[in-house]
Parts: sequence; C-alpha cells; structure tokens
Amino acid sequence: MHSFPELLKKFEDRFNPEAIFPGMPANLYEPCKYILGIGGKRVRPVLCLMANELFGPINEDAWNASYAVELFHNFTLIHDDIMDKAPLRRGMPTIHNKYGLTSGILSGDVMNIFAYQSLAKVSNSLQKLMELFNQTAIEVCEGQQLDMDFEQRNDVTIEEYINMIALKTSVLLACSLKMGAITGGGMGDNANKLYAFGRNLGLAFQLQDDYLDAFGDPEKSGKQVGGDILANKKTILLIQALNVANEQQRQQINTLLESDTTDKVEKMLTLFRTLKVDEYCREQVHYYSELAFKNMDDVAIPSARKEPLLQLAQYLLMRDK
Amino acid sequence: MHSFPELLKKFEDRFNPEAIFPGMPANLYEPCKYILGIGGKRVRPVLCLMANELFGPINEDAWNASYAVELFHNFTLIHDDIMDKAPLRRGMPTIHNKYGLTSGILSGDVMNIFAYQSLAKVSNSLQKLMELFNQTAIEVCEGQQLDMDFEQRNDVTIEEYINMIALKTSVLLACSLKMGAITGGGMGDNANKLYAFGRNLGLAFQLQDDYLDAFGDPEKSGKQVGGDILANKKTILLIQALNVANEQQRQQINTLLESDTTDKVEKMLTLFRTLKVDEYCREQVHYYSELAFKNMDDVAIPSARKEPLLQLAQYLLMRDK
Repeated sequence: MHSFPELLKKFEDRFNPEAIFPGMPANLYEPCKYILGIGGKRVRPVLCLMANELFGPINEDAWNASYAVELFHNFTLIHDDIMDKAPLRRGMPTIHNKYGLTSGILSGDVMNIFAYQSLAKVSNSLQKLMELFNQTAIEVCEGQQLDMDFEQRNDVTIEEYINMIALKTSVLLACSLKMGAITGGGMGDNANKLYAFGRNLGLAFQLQDDYLDAFGDPEKSGKQVGGDILANKKTILLIQALNVANEQQRQQINTLLESDTTDKVEKMLTLFRTLKVDEYCREQVHYYSELAFKNMDDVAIPSARKEPLLQLAQYLLMRDK
Repeated sequence: MHSFPELLKKFEDRFNPEAIFPGMPANLYEPCKYILGIGGKRVRPVLCLMANELFGPINEDAWNASYAVELFHNFTLIHDDIMDKAPLRRGMPTIHNKYGLTSGILSGDVMNIFAYQSLAKVSNSLQKLMELFNQTAIEVCEGQQLDMDFEQRNDVTIEEYINMIALKTSVLLACSLKMGAITGGGMGDNANKLYAFGRNLGLAFQLQDDYLDAFGDPEKSGKQVGGDILANKKTILLIQALNVANEQQRQQINTLLESDTTDKVEKMLTLFRTLKVDEYCREQVHYYSELAFKNMDDVAIPSARKEPLLQLAQYLLMRDK
C-alpha cells in the first residue's frame, strides 16, 4: 500500500505530457503541455490508483484510467477558465489568456480526446469504463451549465446547489475511485461504495471550500478572505443566509450584493454569523464527511488496506487552507 | 442495398436529437438540438451505413457508429464556427451567435461526449473502433489548427495544404467508412481500402470546393463567386498561383490581397486563368477522384454491391454547385 505522497511521486514520474502529446502542430500541443506542467494536486489520478491498490498491485489499466481522469480534468479547467473569464490558474496565466481564445477551445478539445485515447488502452472492461466515464463527463458539463445558470438566478435552493456541486466536482472524484476499482477487478457493491465515498467526500470538500473562503485563516490559505463574497458568488453560505433571513436582513444582504464598499466582506460576514450560516455550513461538511467515512466502512476490504484513502480524505477535510 | 436518398431517410427517421439529449439543463441541451435540427447533408453517417451494408444487412453497431460520427462532426462545426467567428451555418445563426460563447463551448463539449456515448454502445470491436475514432478526432483537431496557422503564413506549400484538408475534412469521411466496415465484420484490407477511398474522395471534394468557389456557376450554387478570394482564403488556387507566378504577377497578387476594390475578384480570376491554376486544380480533383475509384475497385466485394457508394461519390464530385 502506498500513501498519497508516494503515489503522487509515482504518478508525476510516469505521467509525461511531453510524451503524450506530439510536437506538431506546436500551437495545438504547446498549450496542452503548458497547463499540465503548471502543477495541480493530481488528486483524481491518485484516487484512481489508490482504489486500484485496494484490490491488488496497481496495474497498467489503472495507470491508463488515471491518465484519462487527469487529462479530462485539465480539459474542463481550460474550458471553464474561458467561460469564467479567469486570467490565472494555479498562479499562472490561463491558456486563453496566454495563447488566445481559439487555442483555449481547440487545445481543450484535443486534450479531451487524448483522455479517451488513454482510456481506450485498457485491456479489460473497456465498455464498463467507457459507460462510467461518459456518464461522468456528461454530468460534469451539466454541473458547469448549472453553475452558470445559477449566477443569473436569485432563487437557487440548497438542494439545487448540492446537486450542482455534486455534478461539477464530486462525480469525477467518485468516477476516479470507481475506475480504480473496476480496473482492479473490484465490481458491484465495492465499486459502488467507493463511488459513493468519492461523491460524499467531494461534497464535503467543496462545502468546506465555501466555508474557508469566508471564515478561513488568510495567513494559512494565502488567499484573500471573502473572495466569494466580493464576487457575489452563490455559495451555500449566501443561499442559506437568504433562506433564513427575515425581511430586513434579506434587504441588507441584497443591498450588500449590489454594493462595492470596502466593508462589504466584513458586513456580509457579520450577517452570516448572525444567521448562523457558518455553523450550518460546518454541519453540512460534517454530514457529508460522515457519509463518506461510512461508505468506506462498507467497502468489503480489510481496514488496513483502506488507510491511504482514509488518510487522504482526512488530509483533504482537516485542511484549514 | 440502399441508395443515398433511402439511407438518408432511414437515418433521419432514426436519429432523434430530442431523444438523444435530456431536457435539462435546457441551456446546455437546447443548442445541441438546435444545431442538429437545422439540417446538414448527413454524408458521414450515410457513408458509415453504406460501408456496413457492403458486408451484410445494416446492424445496430453501424447505427451507433453513424450517430457517433454525426455528433462528432456537429461538435466540430460548433467550435469551428466560434474560432472562425462565423455568424451563420446552413443559413441559420450559429450557436455562439444565437446562444453566446459559453453555450457554444459547453454544448460542443457535451456533444462530443455524446458521440463517445453512442460509440460505446457497440457490441463488438469497441477497442478497435475507439482507436480509429480517437486517432481521427485528434487529426481533425490538428487539421483545424493547421488551417488557422496557415492564415498567418505566406509560404504554405501545396503538400502542406493537401495534408491540412486531409486532416480537417477527409479523415472523418474515411473513418466513417472504415467504422461501417469494422461494424460489418469487414476487417483488414477491405476496411483499409474503404478508408483510402474516403480520404481520396474527401480530398477531391474539398479541392473541387476551392475550384467552384472561384470558377463555379453562381446561378447553380446560389453562392457569390469568389467568396474565398474576397476573404483572402488560402485555397489551392492561391497557393499554386503564387508558386508559378513570375515576380511581376506575384506583386499583382499581393497587391490584390491587400486591396478591397470592387474588381478584386475579377482581377484575381484573370490572374488565376493566366497562370492556369484553374486547370491545375481540375487536374488535382481528377487525380484524387481517380485514386478514390481505384481504391473502391480494390475492395474485394462484388461490384454490384458497391453501386450506392460509387453513385454517392459521383454525385459529390459531378456536382457543379
């Protein structure tokens, strides 16, 4: 069994964008190599490898599946950055910012196809893996669409929000784990429990992200407190605040959403605390974390083998940045 | 055996975008249904079905492959239209024009994934089909990149141009035919000859397109004569003209490329005729047509069964619009 740092190192040693992508046309492939070269936590491929190792030594099919999820994930980042007009990713210029819009579109497209090319190299269960991967990829697109739709709406419910982040973020984590299981010969209930573990872990992680953006320690995160508030982002905090606010508080929130004053973040945080949405959010993180750990309990594998996955989950959720 | 009109009707009867795409999120799927609903010649899926019928009655795998190529083709049209800033497609507003840039990107992305979802439904030879489809999809992206690169260059050779149009256009026709063969159990040499037939047919068709844009009969095509000349598009005509021009003629061409006068088309056409690039282009169309028909001769299937494919090829190449 290997820990996250060990598998991360193995993945980085083997995953070689210079070898995956041809040299020419340079304007197509240089952006692909660039975005894969500026880092990323590689959580998804490592989850795939860890799930695979639950069932035996990591095999070639798991490696190919792990490449597929990392390539697919980066493809979505390239296109999301265009849609979000994001100038930076991991502190570096985004592809459309550095190379232009058409490069962003086309390099993303070809990276998605390379994801499928990696997946198609598996020796077993290709059809099962393809069905899972396609379903997941469709859901990720749907999640991105809902995220954009929600920006135009003022009546998003908690349920709709949870569904959106599940689609946009969690299902790919879940898919990574299940692909690791399938390529390891782990079928049926075990594979499904690992999928549920990934989905709930992803939800807990994303909700914690909302929490930390507002209530985290900026010295630890290195991020500005309240970035989501400044951007009027529809987080679970804002949705729940509008849910439980009285008429006066609702007006205060709406006024703040339209304002641009220096105390916008501070005033919104005060309202959030008054409305106890910080507590509510922590409870939700706890709820989905517990579900995730329960899912992992239910996987019919000796507990000792689950240690790396549990440690990674704890690392992702205990973080205070 | 079925003719093109018969198979086109069968395809239109079965291919139902309303059933392929879910209802929600509407902003994601409505553009997909829209673009598939505004027509298109469906040449690629019909080629797939025709190739399949060479080997026996059309089977379910061929239908799934035919959906995959049509969905993939439309995905590339959506993204190409963004890159080309095209306001219209088939006389109707393009997706990014009608629904916005983000819809264009995301609806294209999801349509590509639906192409893979169709392909993954085949009962046999999934891996072989995936390898072919992925390789083709990558080449189509490379062709689009080269097309954009060439717009910035003044030293594109005929060989580079032929390679670009092969990648951008012909390989998907070739792939459609080969997928029809593979799903029909036609392997090895027959499948490869059909691929070569499609590639050469595609080249002849595309080069003829260049010819007709300049020298076709506008009454038959319904198009403005010289659209490519007005757009300074690098067609085989312009590339060859610069190849064979003397210094004075080269200067005339370059002056015309920078001009915007009403007689630009007429003057360029006169130069093209003086330099005999009209003849050169017709010879090239003839050369690749002959290669295509020779490829079809080499397919080890009774001639009578090849009639629908040969008729379709003749229809595509005899057209004077």
